[in-house]
Amino acid sequence: MTRKTSTRIREVQFRNGVLAEGSRIVPEEVPIAFSYGGTTHAVMMATPADLEDFALGFSLSEGIISAAADIVSVEMMEAGDGIDLQIVLADGTAEALTARRRHMAGPVGCGLCGIESIEQATRSVAPVDAGDFSLTPAQIAEAVWLLGDGQSLNRETRAVHGAGFFIPGQGLVCLREDVGRHNALDKLAGAVMRSGLAGGHGAVVVTSRLSVEMVQKTAALRSAVLIAVSAPTALAVRTAEAAGITLVGIARGDEFEIFTRPERTIAGVTAHVA
Amino acid sequence: MTRKTSTRIREVQFRNGVLAEGSRIVPEEVPIAFSYGGTTHAVMMATPADLEDFALGFSLSEGIISAAADIVSVEMMEAGDGIDLQIVLADGTAEALTARRRHMAGPVGCGLCGIESIEQATRSVAPVDAGDFSLTPAQIAEAVWLLGDGQSLNRETRAVHGAGFFIPGQGLVCLREDVGRHNALDKLAGAVMRSGLAGGHGAVVVTSRLSVEMVQKTAALRSAVLIAVSAPTALAVRTAEAAGITLVGIARGDEFEIFTRPERTIAGVTAHVA
Repeated sequence: MTRKTSTRIREVQFRNGVLAEGSRIVPEEVPIAFSYGGTTHAVMMATPADLEDFALGFSLSEGIISAAADIVSVEMMEAGDGIDLQIVLADGTAEALTARRRHMAGPVGCGLCGIESIEQATRSVAPVDAGDFSLTPAQIAEAVWLLGDGQSLNRETRAVHGAGFFIPGQGLVCLREDVGRHNALDKLAGAVMRSGLAGGHGAVVVTSRLSVEMVQKTAALRSAVLIAVSAPTALAVRTAEAAGITLVGIARGDEFEIFTRPERTIAGVTAHVA
Repeated sequence: MTRKTSTRIREVQFRNGVLAEGSRIVPEEVPIAFSYGGTTHAVMMATPADLEDFALGFSLSEGIISAAADIVSVEMMEAGDGIDLQIVLADGTAEALTARRRHMAGPVGCGLCGIESIEQATRSVAPVDAGDFSLTPAQIAEAVWLLGDGQSLNRETRAVHGAGFFIPGQGLVCLREDVGRHNALDKLAGAVMRSGLAGGHGAVVVTSRLSVEMVQKTAALRSAVLIAVSAPTALAVRTAEAAGITLVGIARGDEFEIFTRPERTIAGVTAHVA
């Protein structure tokens, strides 16, 4: 199944005080359902590409799977205006999800009590073991440059986010794009898993801002460095600190800011800052 | 209950090849639960401000209420790291939500079948009756300028979205900010409702990109014009066209692009384009 990821549409442009007919290429946005054992877990509005990666990465981020082998198959089915990803989980994984769903189902529907839902949203993430992984300032700049350079859908539309996986010496080994920044990172995580790469061997680099969910997804991938073009929230910083993740933001050209764990993965920072 | 909306954090800056200690003000991000009749409907990660507006606007966007009077009370309760908005609905509204939840609850939890969930995500919106509401190009530029000028939290952090309600001749009568663009628009919708303003008398202006949900929320507010600093998705354009909403994007300085219904609300466009 292939769907186009962008469309040229007609529009009216107002420039220099003059109205004129024109056109612009805009990204497609399609509802993608994630169904496990025939029951839909969630629907995300997303770019209809790299959907097998999306199925894997979303399942990892949601804590439904912990390895690629936990998914037996992903079938993509046309479903009205959208696409339904019918995911078959391995036996133990499927049972764990069913048990979790029984626990979540309240008497009249999807609700948990507020405190339980809130704790789930801010769940602490297991600390990432970075080993001796480190990046130089030049490598951070290289990762950001390669991400921008590699974004083909964004070059067409100037309206989609990108997420890449950078390994020092190897460059950007995976890159995924999506209208949603969370989706782009989920797709990247799936692609990294499917490639057999270890998250701890590289850094995640994204075009977007850093909300807490971006940190949670990076932790699920077990990567110890998250680099972003834009700024983090306070909760993203606190979560990265607790998870032992180095958070780099406002990474533009040769400049950037390090919000957590500079001593751990950016070689030489301690000496400079002390 | 007040919580701070931003925090100054220490960081390491890398500029001109030199590392130095510094600090930056970043926005707070807090889990906000929406509970109706004691059962939590959803948790959003959001800026902890204007939460009564958020309760109203979110309830409107979700189709749970259609007017401010459908909510009897909103109580804000500390709940772990987050805030639980305990919303009491008027009698008929509460019963409708309970019936809808019963319909949604599958045998093992939150799932609908994929096609039903997808149809819900792309639900068509009722056409907006704009009357003879119109904007001139100068008013569009004014709305965008006023939005940027009025964003106090963004001036501090450069990392939050804004949504405003612009009435020709009156300027930007409401403005709300949030780390999430959907939240900013929900808060704006709530603020407009609480002010007793009619959505059809003004235009919505946002700092973000235009995904389909931004159009759906504008339609729920019954506003006929949505102006954005960034670009729309193809689905946002199709949904705006069907709803009779004029979609203006890439609005920067005195330039902008009109994606739908230019003849309906932008005075004089037909003559220029024909």
